Parts: sequence; structure tokens; C-alpha cells
Amino acid sequence: TEVSKLHCIAKICLSIKSKSINNFTLLILSIPDGTTRNNFEGKKVVQLEYEANVSMAQSELRKIYTDIRARWPTVRHVCVHHRLGLVPVNEPSVIIGISSPHRGNSLEAVQFCIDTLKATVPIWKKVKTP
Amino acid sequence: TEVSKLHCIAKICLSIKSKSINNFTLLILSIPDGTTRNNFEGKKVVQLEYEANVSMAQSELRKIYTDIRARWPTVRHVCVHHRLGLVPVNEPSVIIGISSPHRGNSLEAVQFCIDTLKATVPIWKKVKTP
Repeated sequence: TEVSKLHCIAKICLSIKSKSINNFTLLILSIPDGTTRNNFEGKKVVQLEYEANVSMAQSELRKIYTDIRARWPTVRHVCVHHRLGLVPVNEPSVIIGISSPHRGNSLEAVQFCIDTLKATVPIWKKVKTP
Repeated sequence: TEVSKLHCIAKICLSIKSKSINNFTLLILSIPDGTTRNNFEGKKVVQLEYEANVSMAQSELRKIYTDIRARWPTVRHVCVHHRLGLVPVNEPSVIIGISSPHRGNSLEAVQFCIDTLKATVPIWKKVKTP
């Protein structure tokens, strides 16, 4: 069931968290299968390929980490992972996990993180249609 | 490592998601170990006990689901689980998972969901100190 699966996720999340870190927000962005807004010129998307300027991307990500810690000083863990290369549809491309003692902060910080990542980090996608 | 654990979480999350649901936000609230703001009258919290008016709580949760779907019509899955009874520190007490095709929506809906849950759902906590 969904609940038991979420319990399982929670257990894994807990193993990431150190003690006294009580709130954890996880955002997973996957590539849609192209049935809705993600049609590309009317064709179904089967995979995307991500390219990055890796050193610049890492530098921009570090700026985002610094900004997050400046805006939400109580935030503890920040973990961002962006896949590069080929990513099939329905697989996650971006994963952001942020923990904080106050429940609002991790949600706000995740929102800021994904918005800023999309705006500033040099990662591009190439769409592949059948 | 944190990244490989997050990959593992992502795989489980994907098994929850149906196809074409591309964005997933998971919020996990755990009980802190009482080292920071959560000291209760200066004593370390070792566990909490949650009590609920279950039928009223379920009714209020259903209202939240309805409100979420009215505010964010594209939201797909909404899953809320609140533990009742004894919950040790550092274990999750509330888990909220929401998926949506647009990345902003699942984050906003999770924020709304936890804020409204805390404000309206009749679940009370009793703090246990050593």
C-alpha cells in the first residue's frame, strides 16, 4: 500500500538524518512521459539528455547552498543531485533533500533551491522523441 | 553516501507514482530529540504520545484533500499519514506525499497541507520527559 511504502521511505530518510534534525523535505522531479504539457512539438517524449558545464554547475550549486544557509540559518542538511546524460521518462532527474528543525524552513528552502537551480545552474536538456 | 540513499528513496517513490506523474514532494516531520526549541519546560523530550478524535480527524483530512484539489487541480496523488499513540524521538510522526505534473504545485500543496493539518485536524500530543 502507499502508506507502507511511505513508511519505508521514511526509514531510509531517517538513516540520512542525524539526530535532532526533525523535518525533512524531499523533492523529486522526474521526466514526464509526454502525455500532458510535455509533448515536444506534438511528439511523445521518450527520453531526455542532460548536458552541463560541470565546473560552472558545481560553482552555481555552491552559491545556492550559501544562499540557503544565509536565508534559513537553521537548515541542516542540503543535498542536491542532478542526473546528466540520458534519462528515460518516469525516472527522476533532480532530487533535492533538505532538513531543518522548523517545518516551514525545509519546504521554503527546497522551493528556493529548485527555482534557483533552474534559473542559474548551466544544465541543458535535449529532448528525444521517437 | 547520501546520494545513493536518495537514489534508493527515489526508486521507492517511483513505485508509488503512476506514469506521467512527474513531480513528487515528500515531507517528513519527526519528533525532535529536544535539544533545541523542543525542550519541554527545560526537560529533554524522550517520546510523544498522539491522541486523536479519529472520525473527526478523518473528516477534517478529507476537507483538506478537497481544498487541495480545488486549489491545485493538476495535483494527482495526495497521501497523508499521521501516527497515533507513542512515537519515540527521531521517528517520523507525519508523512505527506503529493505528486503533480508541475513542480511548484506539489511543494505549495504540501505546505498548505501541513499548515492546515496542524490548524484543523483534532490530533493532540502529550509530551513525555524522563
